[in-house]
Amino acid sequence: MEYRFARRMSCIPPSFLGELFRVSSQPGVISFAGGLPGSEHIDVDGLAGAARDVLSDEGRSALQYSTTDGYRPLREFIANRYRQRLDLPATADEIQIVNGSQQCLDLMAKILADPGDHIGMERPGYLGAIEAFSLYEPVIHAVPLTGSGPDLTSLEALVREHPLRFFYGIPNSQNPSGQTYSRECRKALAEILDGTGTILYEDDAFGELFFDGKPRIPVRRFLPDQAVISGSFSKIVAPGMRIGWIYAPGPILAQFNAAKQAADLHSNFLSQVILHRYLSTHDLDSHVRKVSRVYGGHCRLMCDLLDDLMPGGVTHTSPEGGMFLMCTLPAGISSMAVFRKGISEGVAVLPGTPFYVDGGGEDTIRLNFSSAGEDAIREGLERLARVVRKIA
Amino acid sequence: MEYRFARRMSCIPPSFLGELFRVSSQPGVISFAGGLPGSEHIDVDGLAGAARDVLSDEGRSALQYSTTDGYRPLREFIANRYRQRLDLPATADEIQIVNGSQQCLDLMAKILADPGDHIGMERPGYLGAIEAFSLYEPVIHAVPLTGSGPDLTSLEALVREHPLRFFYGIPNSQNPSGQTYSRECRKALAEILDGTGTILYEDDAFGELFFDGKPRIPVRRFLPDQAVISGSFSKIVAPGMRIGWIYAPGPILAQFNAAKQAADLHSNFLSQVILHRYLSTHDLDSHVRKVSRVYGGHCRLMCDLLDDLMPGGVTHTSPEGGMFLMCTLPAGISSMAVFRKGISEGVAVLPGTPFYVDGGGEDTIRLNFSSAGEDAIREGLERLARVVRKIA
Repeated sequence: MEYRFARRMSCIPPSFLGELFRVSSQPGVISFAGGLPGSEHIDVDGLAGAARDVLSDEGRSALQYSTTDGYRPLREFIANRYRQRLDLPATADEIQIVNGSQQCLDLMAKILADPGDHIGMERPGYLGAIEAFSLYEPVIHAVPLTGSGPDLTSLEALVREHPLRFFYGIPNSQNPSGQTYSRECRKALAEILDGTGTILYEDDAFGELFFDGKPRIPVRRFLPDQAVISGSFSKIVAPGMRIGWIYAPGPILAQFNAAKQAADLHSNFLSQVILHRYLSTHDLDSHVRKVSRVYGGHCRLMCDLLDDLMPGGVTHTSPEGGMFLMCTLPAGISSMAVFRKGISEGVAVLPGTPFYVDGGGEDTIRLNFSSAGEDAIREGLERLARVVRKIA
Repeated sequence: MEYRFARRMSCIPPSFLGELFRVSSQPGVISFAGGLPGSEHIDVDGLAGAARDVLSDEGRSALQYSTTDGYRPLREFIANRYRQRLDLPATADEIQIVNGSQQCLDLMAKILADPGDHIGMERPGYLGAIEAFSLYEPVIHAVPLTGSGPDLTSLEALVREHPLRFFYGIPNSQNPSGQTYSRECRKALAEILDGTGTILYEDDAFGELFFDGKPRIPVRRFLPDQAVISGSFSKIVAPGMRIGWIYAPGPILAQFNAAKQAADLHSNFLSQVILHRYLSTHDLDSHVRKVSRVYGGHCRLMCDLLDDLMPGGVTHTSPEGGMFLMCTLPAGISSMAVFRKGISEGVAVLPGTPFYVDGGGEDTIRLNFSSAGEDAIREGLERLARVVRKIA
């Protein structure tokens, strides 16, 4: 039979990512295309111990239904960390647990944007956000990302022209670019949005992973009632548990809670209790410092190899943290050609185009430095440089 | 500041359920208001063993990111069970894992219904479905539920009048009524929908819990390309793991998969692997038989007590399975009055009104018989009968 689907389903940008990840995982291919945290940094033994203890002490309640907002001790842990690490006056009542911070993207657009409403995000911007937002049929405006944050002149003009329902950005080690907003940009961004009715949606998936171990001031500090922050344990503990959160002002959280309840009642409760037990009995700071140091080493190695091996005209960002950097290829070299040729030479990269919601980015590629080890990074970059030289 | 939310947020029916569940859980209150499976039937030791083995054998991969469709061995288990138990030709490729079957409600409405589109469901109908569907702003038509299924004359007239995007129902031990569609009704329902373009959305949360242990024929058997079935491990293994699934024709599943990816990338992978390990090493059939027998005993006890203790004019459904039955009060007695008076007498019931999407149901209450034990059921029904007699 012929099936008819809702109009919104035609708003998801066509994606070659499924195919891309399939070919990237072929044996012999060194992949910088994905976005996995390094598997060797998952503390399997620590989490196994926490799981054992939870299932032995309180398994019956951890396996039952629970409340939509999430396990309160875990929300208290998160609020406490905001207070201590970032000097934000968070309380557990302002935190709600979600299925990884991807779910925040879905629910924030759901509660804030009607079809045809205007929203803003960075260019390039996080692909998962473009997919989630698109299904609510907003008009998405992309503000160019510079080395110090979104281009404020463009943003100011945009906000004057359209009442944006929200502006979405990743101030810390952005995906895909690896760029971090400067402190000045954070303040200026808050000033531009202040009083406009535009909610700032600050995605902080990578803020714990600065190579220098120092936290950056959240934009929300300058815009407390008008901003939400999403966070995630995926990059610092384990992605397979799918536990993220939103930290939002009360009236926003109430709507978010209603949408979350309709979406799936509540997040996996067993994993919430296990994760809380793990966090209460292990030193997250020391774990995060260790992981950040390793990623910092990988990132510097990758940057050095790009500088040493690539032909002239290849430039790249120099991240201060996170898991990704972005390369710009010399004029006339297409990232899709590099991707295709790369696969046949045993190296996978992610073409940048899906991160450009309004088109463009054909000369950019995203490289992940958290997943492969140092030897693989060396070998993969050599292969990649050969590919680019051949095409150039 | 003043916050502005999307129009759809005003479409969720106002709910007193939060307050209701709060007062229902006061100490000393025997609650028939909730919808929890009996905690004593969760095999905590079995799941603890499966968790221990998974975290020891394959913890690193179970804690990483995974694919949107879900853990393939678990999908194969589910497909195999459809083939063996219900004679449906399911394959793993037609199954997708979700966060409890509530997420199917959200995603099915998301992929099928534009604002203003017509959809159908039962009256009374599942409250969680009303909440999930409402956020997509469809016109919801309610078809009266009779003792043998939805009223077919009404449904036929409705389908002639409006092209329904989908008709949602719970053929087995419906929530809230406890009613089960007859075999004739299933066939006739399929015939009415056949060729209309209306997708049948068959929610089978309770199909494993027939007291006689015998499965009923899914409506999808008569309408293979035009129906989807959702299922869940919440009622038969453990709700806290939030693992359900959808079983759907390929073109529907492709759209569902895109919506699921945008919603939260994938469901908790650790719990998927643990659950599969548990199912592979334990006898689900024998567990389900045991639970069904206990629930059957509770249900018969509750029905007998209602017949013996209630004043004339109180009627109730006589479920063949599941976790709920529905009572109708004598004319003039409001379920909200029974609820309020009940709390002060130490017994909580769920007023039926939120299950009536187009209003009504003020004289109905839903009673859960899976959660409380036999002594609590006896004591609770005595209290409830006193309350109703006082108000009558």
